[in-house]
Amino acid sequence: MNNTLERSAGIEFWFDFGSNYSYLSVMRIGELARRNNVAITWRPVLLGPIFKSFGWETSPFVLQEEKGRYVWTDMARQCEKFGLPWQRPSTFPRHSLLPVRVALSCANEPWIEDFCKRVMLRNFAADQDINDEQSVAGMLAQSGCADPAAAVAAAQGEANKLKLKEQTARAKALGVFGAPTFFVNGEMFWGNDRLADAIEFASRS
Amino acid sequence: MNNTLERSAGIEFWFDFGSNYSYLSVMRIGELARRNNVAITWRPVLLGPIFKSFGWETSPFVLQEEKGRYVWTDMARQCEKFGLPWQRPSTFPRHSLLPVRVALSCANEPWIEDFCKRVMLRNFAADQDINDEQSVAGMLAQSGCADPAAAVAAAQGEANKLKLKEQTARAKALGVFGAPTFFVNGEMFWGNDRLADAIEFASRS
Repeated sequence: MNNTLERSAGIEFWFDFGSNYSYLSVMRIGELARRNNVAITWRPVLLGPIFKSFGWETSPFVLQEEKGRYVWTDMARQCEKFGLPWQRPSTFPRHSLLPVRVALSCANEPWIEDFCKRVMLRNFAADQDINDEQSVAGMLAQSGCADPAAAVAAAQGEANKLKLKEQTARAKALGVFGAPTFFVNGEMFWGNDRLADAIEFASRS
Repeated sequence: MNNTLERSAGIEFWFDFGSNYSYLSVMRIGELARRNNVAITWRPVLLGPIFKSFGWETSPFVLQEEKGRYVWTDMARQCEKFGLPWQRPSTFPRHSLLPVRVALSCANEPWIEDFCKRVMLRNFAADQDINDEQSVAGMLAQSGCADPAAAVAAAQGEANKLKLKEQTARAKALGVFGAPTFFVNGEMFWGNDRLADAIEFASRS
C-alpha cells in the first residue's frame, strides 16, 4: 500500500489531423477523460500509409462517393450536437505531416491537448491548411510551447521522422484501420461514436 | 382543424436481414418509435446488388480484414449494451433473399416488426440459416400471419420479384450505401449509431 491515488486504465488515442471524425474526438476527449479520471496517451499517426496498405490512394470518404456525400451531412449534425464549430474543408483530406510530427514529438507536453485542438479547428472550422511551418509555429506559441521554432525543428529531425514511421507501423500491427481509434487495456474502440464507451471502459478497468 | 391526432414525420427504415448492424436496429426501432409517436415504414432491401454496384463482391466487413475483425468485437459489446442476445454467425453474410422478399410483400402487415425480429434473431442469436421456405413459413406463423404458405408463395411471385428489384434500384437512387439507413423528411441517417438521432429528428419534424 502507498499513498498514490488509484488511477483507472488510461486511454490510447490514435488520430490524424486530416481525419474529420478525429476532429470530433480531439475536441471532446480531454473533458471526458478528466471527468472520469482517465489518463490520455496521445498517438498522432498518418492515415495515408495505412490506407495505402489497403490499396486505397486516399480517404475512403473520397473513394466511395455515396458515403462521402453523407459524411458531410453527418459531420454538420454531429458538430451541432456537440456544440462544435464546423466548416466543410475545401481540401480533403488535408496534408497533416508536419503537425502530426510535431504532436508526436511533443505528445507528453502539458499543452498537447490545446495544440491538437488548435490544429483541428484550423482545418475543420477555419478551413485553412495546417501543414506549413509558420502556422504550426503560431499554434505552438498560442498553446504555450516555450520555443516553437525549436519544436518544429525537432519534429523534422531524423530521429522524429523515424519515430513517426515506427508509430505508423505500430498502428498497422495493432489493427488500426481508421481514425479515431482508442485502445484501453488492449481493447480496440473505433470511431468518435465509441469514445464515450472507451472512456467508460477505461474508468471501470 | 380536425380531430385526427397530430403525427410526427415518419421514419423510413432500410435494412437487410444479412446485415449485422441492421439486426441491432430491427430489435430497437419499434420501441423507440412507439415512445416517440413515430410511424415506421419498413423498407427491406438487398445490400448485395448495392455493394456490387461499388465493385464489391461481398460485405465490406469481409473484404476489409482489419475492419472485419473489429466488427465482431463491436457487435458483442453493442448487444451487451442494448441487452440483446448475440452469437457471431458462422456464415456471413447469410443469404437473405427469401425473407427480404417476404418482408417487402408484407411490409404493411401488423405483424411485420415481429416477423423481422424473428428472422434477425435466427441469424444473429441462433446462428441458423434464414433463407429456406420452411423456416420462413414457421416464423410467419409464429408472428401471426394467417396463411404462411400463401405469404411465401406471393413473396416469390413475379410481381413481388419485380417490386424488390425496383426497391433496390430506389435505394441506389436515394444514395443508400449500407444498412441500416433511415430517411426522415428526405434526410438520410446511416447506421444503428444514428437511429436515436433519426427518431428524435422525426419526432421534432
